[in-house]
Amino acid sequence: MNHAARVQSLRKAIEQHKLDSLLITHPPNVRYLCGFTGSTSAVLVGSFGSVFFSDGRYTRQAHDEVRGAKIIIAKKSPVSAVAEWLSSRKSRKSITIGVEADHLTVASFRQLKELVPKRLRLRHAPPLVEQSRLIKDAEEMEAIRAAVATGSRLFDRALEVIRPGVSEIEVAAEMEYAARKAGAEAMSFETIIASGLRSALPHGRASSARIPTSGFVVCDFGVILRGYCSDRTRTVWVGSAPEMARRVYSAALEAQAAGVEAVRPGATAGDVDFASRRVLQKYKLAKYFTHSTGHGVGLEIHEAPRVAKGQQEILRPGMVITVEPGVYLPGQWGVRIEDMVVVTETGCEVLTPTQKEFIVI
Amino acid sequence: MNHAARVQSLRKAIEQHKLDSLLITHPPNVRYLCGFTGSTSAVLVGSFGSVFFSDGRYTRQAHDEVRGAKIIIAKKSPVSAVAEWLSSRKSRKSITIGVEADHLTVASFRQLKELVPKRLRLRHAPPLVEQSRLIKDAEEMEAIRAAVATGSRLFDRALEVIRPGVSEIEVAAEMEYAARKAGAEAMSFETIIASGLRSALPHGRASSARIPTSGFVVCDFGVILRGYCSDRTRTVWVGSAPEMARRVYSAALEAQAAGVEAVRPGATAGDVDFASRRVLQKYKLAKYFTHSTGHGVGLEIHEAPRVAKGQQEILRPGMVITVEPGVYLPGQWGVRIEDMVVVTETGCEVLTPTQKEFIVI
Repeated sequence: MNHAARVQSLRKAIEQHKLDSLLITHPPNVRYLCGFTGSTSAVLVGSFGSVFFSDGRYTRQAHDEVRGAKIIIAKKSPVSAVAEWLSSRKSRKSITIGVEADHLTVASFRQLKELVPKRLRLRHAPPLVEQSRLIKDAEEMEAIRAAVATGSRLFDRALEVIRPGVSEIEVAAEMEYAARKAGAEAMSFETIIASGLRSALPHGRASSARIPTSGFVVCDFGVILRGYCSDRTRTVWVGSAPEMARRVYSAALEAQAAGVEAVRPGATAGDVDFASRRVLQKYKLAKYFTHSTGHGVGLEIHEAPRVAKGQQEILRPGMVITVEPGVYLPGQWGVRIEDMVVVTETGCEVLTPTQKEFIVI
Repeated sequence: MNHAARVQSLRKAIEQHKLDSLLITHPPNVRYLCGFTGSTSAVLVGSFGSVFFSDGRYTRQAHDEVRGAKIIIAKKSPVSAVAEWLSSRKSRKSITIGVEADHLTVASFRQLKELVPKRLRLRHAPPLVEQSRLIKDAEEMEAIRAAVATGSRLFDRALEVIRPGVSEIEVAAEMEYAARKAGAEAMSFETIIASGLRSALPHGRASSARIPTSGFVVCDFGVILRGYCSDRTRTVWVGSAPEMARRVYSAALEAQAAGVEAVRPGATAGDVDFASRRVLQKYKLAKYFTHSTGHGVGLEIHEAPRVAKGQQEILRPGMVITVEPGVYLPGQWGVRIEDMVVVTETGCEVLTPTQKEFIVI
């Protein structure tokens, strides 16, 4: 990954926001900027370049992984180490340091404020690293495509395992085992296998519940490869499918296709949400679609942009988002269908292999 | 779980700290107080009782899980919903609301401050819920014992799989598969399988590296059952073991036993760290022990108390901690041995089944 170019472009953004430097503490942002994959660290970026801080557990890992930054291993927490480093710099200039307001806790902010000299001003910075991360570069796309390919194959395994009487957690076990065997670093989130009544829960993590003789099974899953996440949802019916189930599935599928159709440079994230929601309105199912249509995916399973009602973020080539409308009939069942897409110069490319027909097991 | 008693005792602590109410946003704390296992929520506790806030994705789950709190499902973020609820209460009294300073982000804090009426004062509260969580009750201990039992059996699987040429990630795959088959909700952290040179990394997550014909393999792993975590580390030698490896292993084992020996009510967490560290000093290995001796375990894999140098927290019956000294020789290999223990009235009980002899594969 081209960490030097990322730091370079961040330094421009820092200047544009009238900051002297930016303190980065959010682990995916740290990884994006310098390649470090551990948990406890901070990076300070400014005119002096890029300085990385961590503790003794990560000495070797930091030297192996960190690129384009001076490495400081401290006995204290990264925030204390940053404060110490800032205090040690000989200057009388007043300096403005941005912090990641969406990530830094109020306790760490207060601690930092108490430890740094008075001439240093701390300011809540906008999510500058997240803004860069919105647009995936070629290497990132390669990692995402690999994660999508590995993640998608898990559904084939699910289809072999899903049978009445099998527990949801057993289905997840087989999928996760296949993922690890294929080299996945981890699942990108807790696998959702929500069967029967539980399929009406948008976030039904695999439980000890057994798959009923008749009903939907929502499978929502993804893997992490080279740090990048995949995310896919497919819903299948077990047993003999009533007409109503087919109708709702077909509406969800139409809504999903309409969402994908709306993804193109210049459209807003809200336009994509609207396109999916409008289809469900047509079928009088919109009130059963209780979440937003999608989200960005990259180093984090949920990242910018939010693909939700009214979101004004303009889609640009290189953005990777999910399109995943769902219909949840409380006390009955639910359906969700999700693909990952990348915005291209002319529209979008669906990354997830497409098979989305109504499957009966 | 006895959520009503927990809220009751928190209300006392809130009063003692001269707060009118406390806003809880940290998911494990929310779960502890009302049973909700989802991700986006908040609980406000005060003289009015306990109010739970989440969004439309969690309507059904909230009603299924939340106990002892009024449930409010809002269209907005939990923090906005809390602000709205607070604003709607008819009162002219000035009210002080504590926030979780260690968890709330500066952005959410600012948002909350802007949204609530001026008569409401926000204050950084100490970690009151974490203080309660320090002492595990009978139901929690039952869940922890179950997690420890399931987690520990994974090592038997590891011993079957660890062979020269097998990749670390394959070992993790087999262990995680066994965990899921045994009903684990998830692993409590990313499984560490660090072999050969990588065993000198305290945090060597399972990688594609293959187990060498000779060297240590550090296995650090745990599962989540009923929300509670287990954590265990064992280190084995593959191939013919040099005398030096045996000596360092034996020193680490002695340090671990000394740490466990030091766990008793009235001792400080720092005493436990000191006891382990002193043994390694005796063998001139202390400088290769680059992390703290342990940490609390419960709903989170890392929670209070910190078992580290100088920590003054007094151990009390019902606290559950790890004791896990390690020795890492850079560029060579490393050893770590870890058990979970619970502080009892008279000393401590080792929860993890004990087999800790030097194993050669």
